[in-house]
Amino acid sequence: MIKTDNTAILLIHCPDKQGILAVVTEFINVNKGNILYLDQWVDKEDEQFFMRVEWSLDEFEIPREKIEEYFATLIAHRLEMKFNLYFKNVKPRMAIFVSKMSHCLYDMLARHAAGEWQVDIPVIISNHLELEHVAQRFGIPFKHIPISKENKAAQEAVQLELLNKYRVSFVVLARYMQVVSDDFIQYYPNKIINIHHSFLPAFVGAKPYHAAHARGVKLIGATSHYVTADLDAGPIIKQDVTHITHKDTVEALVRKGQDLEKIVLSRAVAKHIERKVLVYGNRTVVFE
Amino acid sequence: MIKTDNTAILLIHCPDKQGILAVVTEFINVNKGNILYLDQWVDKEDEQFFMRVEWSLDEFEIPREKIEEYFATLIAHRLEMKFNLYFKNVKPRMAIFVSKMSHCLYDMLARHAAGEWQVDIPVIISNHLELEHVAQRFGIPFKHIPISKENKAAQEAVQLELLNKYRVSFVVLARYMQVVSDDFIQYYPNKIINIHHSFLPAFVGAKPYHAAHARGVKLIGATSHYVTADLDAGPIIKQDVTHITHKDTVEALVRKGQDLEKIVLSRAVAKHIERKVLVYGNRTVVFE
Amino acid sequence: MIKTDNTAILLIHCPDKQGILAVVTEFINVNKGNILYLDQWVDKEDEQFFMRVEWSLDEFEIPREKIEEYFATLIAHRLEMKFNLYFKNVKPRMAIFVSKMSHCLYDMLARHAAGEWQVDIPVIISNHLELEHVAQRFGIPFKHIPISKENKAAQEAVQLELLNKYRVSFVVLARYMQVVSDDFIQYYPNKIINIHHSFLPAFVGAKPYHAAHARGVKLIGATSHYVTADLDAGPIIKQDVTHITHKDTVEALVRKGQDLEKIVLSRAVAKHIERKVLVYGNRTVVFE
Amino acid sequence: MIKTDNTAILLIHCPDKQGILAVVTEFINVNKGNILYLDQWVDKEDEQFFMRVEWSLDEFEIPREKIEEYFATLIAHRLEMKFNLYFKNVKPRMAIFVSKMSHCLYDMLARHAAGEWQVDIPVIISNHLELEHVAQRFGIPFKHIPISKENKAAQEAVQLELLNKYRVSFVVLARYMQVVSDDFIQYYPNKIINIHHSFLPAFVGAKPYHAAHARGVKLIGATSHYVTADLDAGPIIKQDVTHITHKDTVEALVRKGQDLEKIVLSRAVAKHIERKVLVYGNRTVVFE
Repeated sequence: MIKTDNTAILLIHCPDKQGILAVVTEFINVNKGNILYLDQWVDKEDEQFFMRVEWSLDEFEIPREKIEEYFATLIAHRLEMKFNLYFKNVKPRMAIFVSKMSHCLYDMLARHAAGEWQVDIPVIISNHLELEHVAQRFGIPFKHIPISKENKAAQEAVQLELLNKYRVSFVVLARYMQVVSDDFIQYYPNKIINIHHSFLPAFVGAKPYHAAHARGVKLIGATSHYVTADLDAGPIIKQDVTHITHKDTVEALVRKGQDLEKIVLSRAVAKHIERKVLVYGNRTVVFE
Repeated sequence: MIKTDNTAILLIHCPDKQGILAVVTEFINVNKGNILYLDQWVDKEDEQFFMRVEWSLDEFEIPREKIEEYFATLIAHRLEMKFNLYFKNVKPRMAIFVSKMSHCLYDMLARHAAGEWQVDIPVIISNHLELEHVAQRFGIPFKHIPISKENKAAQEAVQLELLNKYRVSFVVLARYMQVVSDDFIQYYPNKIINIHHSFLPAFVGAKPYHAAHARGVKLIGATSHYVTADLDAGPIIKQDVTHITHKDTVEALVRKGQDLEKIVLSRAVAKHIERKVLVYGNRTVVFE
Repeated sequence: MIKTDNTAILLIHCPDKQGILAVVTEFINVNKGNILYLDQWVDKEDEQFFMRVEWSLDEFEIPREKIEEYFATLIAHRLEMKFNLYFKNVKPRMAIFVSKMSHCLYDMLARHAAGEWQVDIPVIISNHLELEHVAQRFGIPFKHIPISKENKAAQEAVQLELLNKYRVSFVVLARYMQVVSDDFIQYYPNKIINIHHSFLPAFVGAKPYHAAHARGVKLIGATSHYVTADLDAGPIIKQDVTHITHKDTVEALVRKGQDLEKIVLSRAVAKHIERKVLVYGNRTVVFE
Repeated sequence: MIKTDNTAILLIHCPDKQGILAVVTEFINVNKGNILYLDQWVDKEDEQFFMRVEWSLDEFEIPREKIEEYFATLIAHRLEMKFNLYFKNVKPRMAIFVSKMSHCLYDMLARHAAGEWQVDIPVIISNHLELEHVAQRFGIPFKHIPISKENKAAQEAVQLELLNKYRVSFVVLARYMQVVSDDFIQYYPNKIINIHHSFLPAFVGAKPYHAAHARGVKLIGATSHYVTADLDAGPIIKQDVTHITHKDTVEALVRKGQDLEKIVLSRAVAKHIERKVLVYGNRTVVFE
């Protein structure tokens, strides 16, 4: 079994036709790419084709910097494909936005520190100072950018500048507790991952645990999703729930929910890092 | 370990005070009742006390028919208690309302036939004829009462008359697909159990699987609840979910959901039969 | 979206090489087969290729009865493939073996009666008479074949004769409570599905709920698997668990376990009926 | 709703008799203790009574340091009770033993740092140096005590001395990868919590993920338990599982398993810290 980081990853989306799979795998095989991963799915209803393929570049005959051009010209163009090409050894760069709660932040930093994730974390941004010491513990720059109604636009501009400076490729809102403006989102379309502390679409908005308690539900959940202009309505990546009983106070829900939140967020982030998520309408295709 | 059906069950709800538990258990012990089950819970926030206690009547010194009066006079009155007294060997009588889908109906009839539930099922009522043969297979009277916008009030009167005639103590809507009127509900307050095919409060109303698919959720659910005047908003008894992926069509959701629906409904019905559910505001206390 | 029962299904297993997928899809495409389902998986460690493909025969140019021969000659032979060809409109024929417990039997018969499964159930076989009335309710022949230590070999011969007479393609042991002999198994290799009431390999053999209670586990499970000569050690198809607490008696485990058993068994049977299970060593590939 | 840390907690275990509950609650009420939590359970089969009760000491008339003596004399002695008395504001002191893997350690330190747990962590002990930097990040003393076959007894003596010096009340083996000797265990009976990376009793011993993969199971699990002289056979506190498929390599199982391990371990530790676990034979009563 070959283990290599010298691989290319293609995420593909196009109208379904006969033979797409054969054409793509042929392109790789003929140029001496060894396919290490292939998963495809056809939405029969909408007649859409989705694929993720990863292959070794060790003996691949098209130079790395030419693959995108060749694939576009020879294949993607005539099949009306949208595609994204990634290289495994080019790590994505992730910024984490936090507020005061540390559980999601710790969970991600611990994974990063343990080498579980192929990602760089160049900066942590917060509207509060409470978690500065956590960033310091892990040796990651922490930027304090307080947000108020009045300064929001200006401060978001500061944030965007920072993201630019640190060449950030995607953003994780780890219980950030601020609504990000549409302007901001436009710079990172389907590249801002949020964790919402309910099984969406139930309990959109603020204080979902209070709402869950009031409604008397028998399970609570967490949802990780890409942020869009509609609050808590973006494409869902991962969801999970846990059972509760009448004995659980709001406080208990908060505590139980935190374990869900961190796991559900980290799973979504892992899939994003591995380039296994493809957004399609308001839904996601999440490859295994 | 004593096995007996000659037991009394008390469900109690009152403002919390010191010593309630001691007073109630003392009442049973002193009169030679052997306590077989005791579970209690205090809602510290609202200062409410809830309790379920079951004891053997084999040597109990207060005659069966006098227990309610004695308990009311000696205890419940001064502690502002609401209580319900049941005898295990007096089986509740359950009517099942169905439409065209058989999975929940079969699940309940199979449990009944196998002796899993201490319940009588005197009648099955439907607005369609599709499931008549199922009722016949299990030897249970089937009443066909078609419902249209025009005849709804009249037909509900017929239904109520039937329920009365069969001395029905509670009703199960097993994918009945009809909204029951407020008038009807008033005759069976917290005694009509419905199964809704979503994790409420998400996807209230018709076609929840279509809505779930459109929203791109990563899990689907089912919710059993008591029916109130607000559609799909009554006190929840049981909920469960199952994970899905982008590959699941609406058809697949329907199929996977059916397994959830029947199990979640049957669990709620079992708890109701065992007199382990206590409604409190719009929530339920479900004893184990 | 095309809905047709006139499809062919290929299950393929062979050593992994470049281009297998392309070769197989090409064979179908070139002969005007419209692929409706394709899933493949490569075991990179053992370098084994697995695939399930289903295509419409409506315009397929190779006649139905020739497909197997053509595929064997043109493709399977040179790629050292093992393959199975099925036609969706040729239903498998399933015999159910039961003993005294009805929950799994009812669950399967209800699915069959509701048209959920594309399967025929020509016969139910039991070593006891308790469930004869269930078979009668569903109008399925019931054969009583009592088993003792002394008559086992002879009675299994009678069973095999019956299976032969009813042209049974696979057997489901629905809490049959008898160990089937190696001789019997040889006639139905990877075609006898059993449900074991534990999360195997924990609690092999008799009385797993008693063993689970004694060990003080916090979850109980059920496992559906193909029967092999080694007791409870055959390839696992589906497993699931449910949480329990110290409060659960053995009796409670039995009751909670029954819900698991029926669902886990029915899911395995569904996958088998849909020809989505491929046995590989002592493991299964279960396509979605 | 009263929030106070000035509470006493009683864990009680005795033969079941009528009226125990009344006697214990009376003892508290009469002396002006306000009961904040009460849960009890009777094992009807073995006729054993278990109880956890917590009450406010704010107006309790028996002095803190006399409660144990009074309760023993007035109640426990005549009812043949075993009991443990704790004060909420006296935090237990927990030592963490680790080896090379950081996920469980980070999870616990993050909870501790966030104030989620009422516990002190005076020392981290390891047979390797890999995680020293983690301990340093959180400012907790790290002691490197390498273990070999030859020096095991001597090094365990060093460990015990350290535990003594740091007044450790219980030990957590957070993927410690060493079998602790019977001698060591005797000093901390039912006070050493281990996490085993399988759903015990399946896959006892080394390399459970390899064993799970070889057996072809469809779910993997984790089990937290008290350590006893029998390897992986002590009283289980918490268990959980996650579903896997044929696609999961051993490497994938390890990765998925780590999320289970840390959550299952932390849940057990939380229950232990809250004094909600009572060992009974080889089983646990875990109060909610």
